[in-house]
Amino acid sequence: MRVGVDVGGTKILAVAVDEGGSVVATVRRATGWGADAVVDGICAAVETVSQGRRPDAIGVGVPGQVAPRGIVRHALNLGIDSLDLAAAVEDRIGARPVVENDVRAAAVGVSALLPEVASLAYLNVGTGVAAGIAQGGMPWRGARGAAGEIGHVSVDPAGPVCPCGQRGCIEALAGGDAVAARWGQAATLPVAEVFEAADAGDPLALSVRADLVRGVAAAVQLLVLTTDVERVVLGGGVANLGERLRRPVRTALRAAASGSVFLASLDLADRVVPVPSDAPIGALGAALLAGAPAAAVPGM
Amino acid sequence: MRVGVDVGGTKILAVAVDEGGSVVATVRRATGWGADAVVDGICAAVETVSQGRRPDAIGVGVPGQVAPRGIVRHALNLGIDSLDLAAAVEDRIGARPVVENDVRAAAVGVSALLPEVASLAYLNVGTGVAAGIAQGGMPWRGARGAAGEIGHVSVDPAGPVCPCGQRGCIEALAGGDAVAARWGQAATLPVAEVFEAADAGDPLALSVRADLVRGVAAAVQLLVLTTDVERVVLGGGVANLGERLRRPVRTALRAAASGSVFLASLDLADRVVPVPSDAPIGALGAALLAGAPAAAVPGM
Repeated sequence: MRVGVDVGGTKILAVAVDEGGSVVATVRRATGWGADAVVDGICAAVETVSQGRRPDAIGVGVPGQVAPRGIVRHALNLGIDSLDLAAAVEDRIGARPVVENDVRAAAVGVSALLPEVASLAYLNVGTGVAAGIAQGGMPWRGARGAAGEIGHVSVDPAGPVCPCGQRGCIEALAGGDAVAARWGQAATLPVAEVFEAADAGDPLALSVRADLVRGVAAAVQLLVLTTDVERVVLGGGVANLGERLRRPVRTALRAAASGSVFLASLDLADRVVPVPSDAPIGALGAALLAGAPAAAVPGM
Repeated sequence: MRVGVDVGGTKILAVAVDEGGSVVATVRRATGWGADAVVDGICAAVETVSQGRRPDAIGVGVPGQVAPRGIVRHALNLGIDSLDLAAAVEDRIGARPVVENDVRAAAVGVSALLPEVASLAYLNVGTGVAAGIAQGGMPWRGARGAAGEIGHVSVDPAGPVCPCGQRGCIEALAGGDAVAARWGQAATLPVAEVFEAADAGDPLALSVRADLVRGVAAAVQLLVLTTDVERVVLGGGVANLGERLRRPVRTALRAAASGSVFLASLDLADRVVPVPSDAPIGALGAALLAGAPAAAVPGM
């Protein structure tokens, strides 16, 4: 049995996965704030989901930059600036986990749900925007674990200002935080409210929605033109809009391809698919990574 | 002995490579127009460079889209719309070559010259703009052999119109053909002339040069943020400007990073390097690919 843990800004989700890769137990708990509370939460979730057995391997998916040996940096929404997470968990429970960036872990989880797809990018459109790239079920990490950090590619020098200092970053166009800030109204689900207001003709909402759609379309285009993955799997909080988001994204991609034999030949629009189920892809991917031989992981 | 052939728009360059990976013979000839002439030229170059010996393997790098089995499409500057190049060469000389996109082959050649670099993108800024991504000396091809085709990622919706129908494609900003068209004056080396006129304060040249620099900087940024390669190696005709191009590109990347802890941590500017020698990287890479076991090539 392998255990996978997905550490989110609000909840920690842990799963136990059997030999065949199926999820056999799930535990959910609130995420604490700061390094100690996060480590506590991870260890408690691992112990609960293991139900008294000792896991063969443990994987943890966590936001922020993850260096190869399990050091987490810039996980700002967890209150962590820098933490040797692998060592901290090992100190507590006597087993060293594999630690991976959460979006990259989710890409591995999605790959397991789409075994017929040899290469994919999991495009997470949540409060921020980032992608995990996987081939043959294994993640592409890059030299410093930064592969897939496309949220800060600028696609419009006259676009909205991004907190990173650039203008027109994909995240400034399509990230949930950026959309909520531009919408400026207190709302439980600001992105859904923007879409409804846009349907009703509100000019600000139309502008914010158009930017969101072109930001996601730009992300798909640059992922495919750079890595030529077979599928771009849209997930994350903003992507919960489902076809209301995917349909205009596909339309934008088809419009761009309409003038170009080259772009048309790449079928960008048809590569955009939703997460195929409501499986806990982040935790599942972390568990699968924990069981993978390190030598099989490209870019590690 | 392996033979590698680089088929360019004006010349065909063939090399013979010994067991140790060193170039032991080189042949150069003019490229003919159309499928028959191109196949003739490749076969003649292979025979001449082999000097009567039978090569153990033959690799050919060619512009255009290359499908896994050696079918070349859209090699417009060779006068080829679609050609089964591997079969055509095999029919003529009795040995089946490995065929690869020329930029991707060059990425493999550059990798051989930089053995200490685990992953790199070879960014070819010539008449067009494209990149070849290599890890551990092997090329990343993608699902349809389109990986690295970043020339048609749009980074400015208000930028110059690209023949592909979009605006602000990297190729429309930084490709040699686009620069020459915008400069509009007959010149042997239009890009060099633009840089000189810009130094002299010519307003059009300043604008065209600024776009060229931001196009290349955008290419570097999106390559690193998407794939996190250790190095982006600048090559191609436009990149022959050397430090006159690399210096302002690095300045633009440092400016973008100055407001962002995240971007600054990625050291984009320091990843930009020139091709390390005047070695025939395209032909060398084609020869090395020809000797590589297919199973070792990711994304094939």
